[in-house]
Amino acid sequence: MFLKNSFFLFCIIGYLSISPFIAIAQEHPSLILTKAGVEKIRAELGKVPLFDVSLEQLKKEVDAEIALGIDTPVPKDYSGGYTHTRHKKNWIVLQKAGVLFQILQDEKYAIYVRDMLMQYAELYPTLPAHPKTRSYARGKLFWQCLNDSNWLVYVSQAYDCIYDWLSKKERKNLEKNLFRPFADWISVKNPQFYNRVHNHSTWGNAAVGMIGLVMDDEELVERALYGFKDDALEVGAKDNDGGFIKEEGQKTGFLANLDEPFSPDGYYTEGPYYQRYAMYPFLIFAQGLHNVKPELKIFEYKKGVLLKSVNALLNLTDADGEFFPINDGQKGMSYYSRELVTAVDIAYHFGGNNPELLSIAQKQGRVVLDDTGLSIAMGIKEGRAKPFVKKSINLSDGSDGDQGGVGILRYGEEDLTVVLKYAAQGLSHGHYDKLSFSVYEKGEEVLQDYGLARFVNIEQKGGGNYLKENTTWAKQTVAHNTLVQNETSHFDGKYEVGNKHHSELFFFDTTNDHVQLISAKEKNAYPETEMHRTLVLIKDKNMEKPYVLDILKVNSNTKNKYDLPFYYKGQIMEMNFDYKVPKSLNPLGTSNGYQHLWLEGKGNSTSQNTKFSWLNNQKFYTLTMATHLNDELLFTRLGANDPEFNLRRDAAFMLRRKDVAKEVFVSIIESHGAYSPVSEFAVNARSSISNLEVIYDDIDFTGVLIETTKDKKSLLILSNIEASKSYEHKLEINNKEYKWTGPYYFGPVK
Amino acid sequence: MFLKNSFFLFCIIGYLSISPFIAIAQEHPSLILTKAGVEKIRAELGKVPLFDVSLEQLKKEVDAEIALGIDTPVPKDYSGGYTHTRHKKNWIVLQKAGVLFQILQDEKYAIYVRDMLMQYAELYPTLPAHPKTRSYARGKLFWQCLNDSNWLVYVSQAYDCIYDWLSKKERKNLEKNLFRPFADWISVKNPQFYNRVHNHSTWGNAAVGMIGLVMDDEELVERALYGFKDDALEVGAKDNDGGFIKEEGQKTGFLANLDEPFSPDGYYTEGPYYQRYAMYPFLIFAQGLHNVKPELKIFEYKKGVLLKSVNALLNLTDADGEFFPINDGQKGMSYYSRELVTAVDIAYHFGGNNPELLSIAQKQGRVVLDDTGLSIAMGIKEGRAKPFVKKSINLSDGSDGDQGGVGILRYGEEDLTVVLKYAAQGLSHGHYDKLSFSVYEKGEEVLQDYGLARFVNIEQKGGGNYLKENTTWAKQTVAHNTLVQNETSHFDGKYEVGNKHHSELFFFDTTNDHVQLISAKEKNAYPETEMHRTLVLIKDKNMEKPYVLDILKVNSNTKNKYDLPFYYKGQIMEMNFDYKVPKSLNPLGTSNGYQHLWLEGKGNSTSQNTKFSWLNNQKFYTLTMATHLNDELLFTRLGANDPEFNLRRDAAFMLRRKDVAKEVFVSIIESHGAYSPVSEFAVNARSSISNLEVIYDDIDFTGVLIETTKDKKSLLILSNIEASKSYEHKLEINNKEYKWTGPYYFGPVK
Repeated sequence: MFLKNSFFLFCIIGYLSISPFIAIAQEHPSLILTKAGVEKIRAELGKVPLFDVSLEQLKKEVDAEIALGIDTPVPKDYSGGYTHTRHKKNWIVLQKAGVLFQILQDEKYAIYVRDMLMQYAELYPTLPAHPKTRSYARGKLFWQCLNDSNWLVYVSQAYDCIYDWLSKKERKNLEKNLFRPFADWISVKNPQFYNRVHNHSTWGNAAVGMIGLVMDDEELVERALYGFKDDALEVGAKDNDGGFIKEEGQKTGFLANLDEPFSPDGYYTEGPYYQRYAMYPFLIFAQGLHNVKPELKIFEYKKGVLLKSVNALLNLTDADGEFFPINDGQKGMSYYSRELVTAVDIAYHFGGNNPELLSIAQKQGRVVLDDTGLSIAMGIKEGRAKPFVKKSINLSDGSDGDQGGVGILRYGEEDLTVVLKYAAQGLSHGHYDKLSFSVYEKGEEVLQDYGLARFVNIEQKGGGNYLKENTTWAKQTVAHNTLVQNETSHFDGKYEVGNKHHSELFFFDTTNDHVQLISAKEKNAYPETEMHRTLVLIKDKNMEKPYVLDILKVNSNTKNKYDLPFYYKGQIMEMNFDYKVPKSLNPLGTSNGYQHLWLEGKGNSTSQNTKFSWLNNQKFYTLTMATHLNDELLFTRLGANDPEFNLRRDAAFMLRRKDVAKEVFVSIIESHGAYSPVSEFAVNARSSISNLEVIYDDIDFTGVLIETTKDKKSLLILSNIEASKSYEHKLEINNKEYKWTGPYYFGPVK
Repeated sequence: MFLKNSFFLFCIIGYLSISPFIAIAQEHPSLILTKAGVEKIRAELGKVPLFDVSLEQLKKEVDAEIALGIDTPVPKDYSGGYTHTRHKKNWIVLQKAGVLFQILQDEKYAIYVRDMLMQYAELYPTLPAHPKTRSYARGKLFWQCLNDSNWLVYVSQAYDCIYDWLSKKERKNLEKNLFRPFADWISVKNPQFYNRVHNHSTWGNAAVGMIGLVMDDEELVERALYGFKDDALEVGAKDNDGGFIKEEGQKTGFLANLDEPFSPDGYYTEGPYYQRYAMYPFLIFAQGLHNVKPELKIFEYKKGVLLKSVNALLNLTDADGEFFPINDGQKGMSYYSRELVTAVDIAYHFGGNNPELLSIAQKQGRVVLDDTGLSIAMGIKEGRAKPFVKKSINLSDGSDGDQGGVGILRYGEEDLTVVLKYAAQGLSHGHYDKLSFSVYEKGEEVLQDYGLARFVNIEQKGGGNYLKENTTWAKQTVAHNTLVQNETSHFDGKYEVGNKHHSELFFFDTTNDHVQLISAKEKNAYPETEMHRTLVLIKDKNMEKPYVLDILKVNSNTKNKYDLPFYYKGQIMEMNFDYKVPKSLNPLGTSNGYQHLWLEGKGNSTSQNTKFSWLNNQKFYTLTMATHLNDELLFTRLGANDPEFNLRRDAAFMLRRKDVAKEVFVSIIESHGAYSPVSEFAVNARSSISNLEVIYDDIDFTGVLIETTKDKKSLLILSNIEASKSYEHKLEINNKEYKWTGPYYFGPVK
């Protein structure tokens, strides 16, 4: 009954609200393509290779779809199922066909767009909410409003492209039966989806705003920018993922979504995978606003945060352009995605023509077919591309940049890249992994972050949606390269608690060309416990490659059990301690992710340095840890309590230390040598670290001695309290006095 | 005492046997490089790009080594250790420096070779047998005579290059103190190594022969070609790997090694990995014989088997050029190896300038710096390269080609490649895997063969040698995609028994452009049991890619338990039966490889088709099996009883059928669709096989019905007894009569 009533209600609202605006004349296209832009593009056709190639690709794809015929099936499936995939394909092809009509001025594309839109205008009024009920906000074409919003973001562009070509009557039909009720469904009918700060809402806001701009419907544009009042949502309500829908005093709308989740550095609090996903509606709606409402100066909003965010995102990738899978992130997603093609083109065109972006566009091999894509293709044609050199970068989190962040250490050649997460919770897609880190070597994972437990859009795996193992495993602390206290997750895995806290930057220093450091503290993850992790990427000219020094200091008021896992990839080579392997495999624990880990072996450290080495992708790696006698050493493998085989069978090497209150865990990760199965030569197959030792540790300072097989001794002293760059320190270790300025000393042992 | 005495003995023998020949003048270089060849090469320098690039690479490498200085350490280590690696590097650099001296006529290379050889001439007489005792035939520089032989094969070339440049006195010193005793140690002093048919002996024979050719020492050349008498070896003695050293009536020497392990098709009975290894001494010694003793017509020996073997080897690779790891084979070894650069260059130069070999050389990116390399580089320069198109091929095994073989089915584009092994045992490197198969897709493994359990030359893994898991796992039947009876391996895993038998080709038919078949029988692997496997690669224009039909018929006089494993790679997507996963993992069995398999889940088939699908490398795969109700279905994963983590944690899906005597196991393997983590689209994610059914099965015929989701029904009828191509068959199935000629019918269901 509700559905029927609400449906009639829309039609009335839809009709009433469109009518006052329908008469005002506006140029079309004006949203993404513009009349002037199209003229310029047409003048350059055949002259700008990357643009022509992209046009050719697009034409081929759309022509194939036109040949296939139009299908707008009655919605039925979850992600990955036929009706889902078909409607998704439709939105993509509609947008592209609209562009082709404008650029090629071939009516067949306009006809295709019109005919499909007309089918939608017939179908849409007949649709109840989607029959699949899993979402907290069901769409009509799709099982969630989110996908319906995707559809409208793209289809509003197609509508803009054929707007002038349609008859007034056709436009009226489409707006009355399709677009206006569509915009209302994803906004006023679903405030729990629309009126929040979340990537879902960004899509919703952009969708409503873009169709509003095309229809010249000020009410919809206002609703897009600022949300709407009286949403009747209760503070504290949650969505399917456990995320808050409404918090106290929360602002709504597109600008609020730009204010809150983005830090001043352009880092998006959910992490790069969702930032990539959200970038498209942010940027495409911004482009539309720029074109139709230039007075808003949207690209200058919050000191140009939208364009900064593209730079942040490009820096949040490994050497292959794949995003670090911080929080929920599907591995393999990269700057080759369609969202990043748009992002790079827009950032170049509206952001001062940075020539480094041209080299990314060259790798992408395609451009958007509008002014921005033409700019970038012409820049490449004119030979202005420069390599995009990723540097070490510290990206703050939080709308004011004061809620922790993500730090990345790398040298120019990206031999080893270290990523430290010390950010805020990351909304509902956040993981409980304060101070976790991961290590990459030229695009390969050395110490991995598991990413999400989901096969996005693969229907046979849980409808393509989040799997329950995302909660029971992927989000848990033990699934990450960070410290676990007493087999519990940070904040006890409670979103409400985690969401209130963030880690804090201690310092980030990359001024020295052979020592780079990122240091951060976490005081809330465990009760009465402070953790302080410092990652150092050291270039030693006597060593083959830079190596990673990891200093993790924990200080608790009680005695605890600590686990420190290292999720290596590849095949074990050797270790320097005794261990036993069990006859049967049993899970390491019963909850908080431990129930998913098989214990494959267990030993005890027998010397002050525990060494563990492995081979992966034809390279050798060694972890050297400063250990106590009888520290436990565990070999784990994922896969227990996984009845649907949803988890990868990944391995970890784990240090376990019991009954300690104040401890410092110090490790070195080296990449060394190579093995070729073709030449069968093994080169530099063994570690170059001969000793790793904590030679000083108190509340103020921690001193770590590193000795290499070439008899070189280095000392790193960290100030644990004073991070000021100008502070002068003095410390005596083993009767020798060290003096330095700033938070750390790195140099010879006296 | 023995060592000392035998050392003095050598010196005497060495001196006596060299002296009669030392006065006879012979041109140098003459072995691989020739005086005329060098002149031609020098005339072309700077004109043939691939040759110049290869020369530049070589020069860079050798110059770096010269700068490093000479080291000939006292031998101490196993494979992968410093002294092993250094002496190995030395032989490589010596050979290259010799070549550079000839081509560049820069004396510094001659000086380097001479100085290092002089060090060896001082060191060698002081050496006892190598201190590591694991080998059945210890070398002096290395732990096995095999590596010493490698050294001499290369170093004899270096000696040839500087022979004329050295003084008579220097030559005498080298021959007396180094080369002659060296040649004797690996031959007369180690008959168990030298006087057999094995890749070890091939290296030994070539080493002795090549230094004999350089020294113009007829006795050594004779010893190389024919071995020597009175070796005092007992028939039935075995080496470390369990291989026979001497069998009744066995011939010896290089020609015997060419006669026996090579089939007339050029397949080498140990498999492609060892064929690659053996190719170098076979071909390089042959090239030397061709140059010095053209009257032997070595390249025409046994109908040109040496050159045929290069073609066989190139066809035994996947689309990336990696060898199928049949028997003991290290994965990743490929036609990019130095041995195959030599092989391809020689095969081109001496084998009629096949332009397809030029495209392989282009991929290799380097050539040998002699006449053969110049030929190939000039062929490429002249634009004569054609693609090397691998076709389906059946390669017989056995010296007369009557001991089974290996069949490969593929279409030109190598979408799916099927490899069936129905060969002889493969000497001591053979696995117990009669009628096993593997499937590849464009260079990726779909159903894998495990290969060997060894990290070749990685010292920290068992000295770089075979691991015990090679015997307990890799060689066992259950480690392969073939049928296991009662949890035992073929021939009960007994080499003596397996070595007496081979499978038999039933038929190989690739004349039809959309159905290719290989069919073979095995009658000896299990007592009173015959197995008959037919693999069919079918192209159906309604399906996206070719698919594999597997028909495995077993006929035993007793009731048995059968396991049929499929070693898939990747992540499980879905299955159509119920199963349970255990709380703890236990090994599937106690011996014959089963002790290494964890049982991760167990179910029972609930319909006449069991389906199991997985995702790997962004592609979907489905296995469809015609099953009985209550067939057991097992999920296994490798890793049990593996205390040193030597085994990969690979998975299998296994069909288990109990208490049956006569059975037919029918399966289809499909590759379908794709998933991109960048676009997040899943395309064609489900199987197109709607029914797979055995609709006829008796002693004479087996009829299999295949139905696709496009309502296409196909029928394959196999004759189980009569393989003749001209035989006319008639059979009634479901009241319809089928008539055809030849061993199979494939067509519509009537």
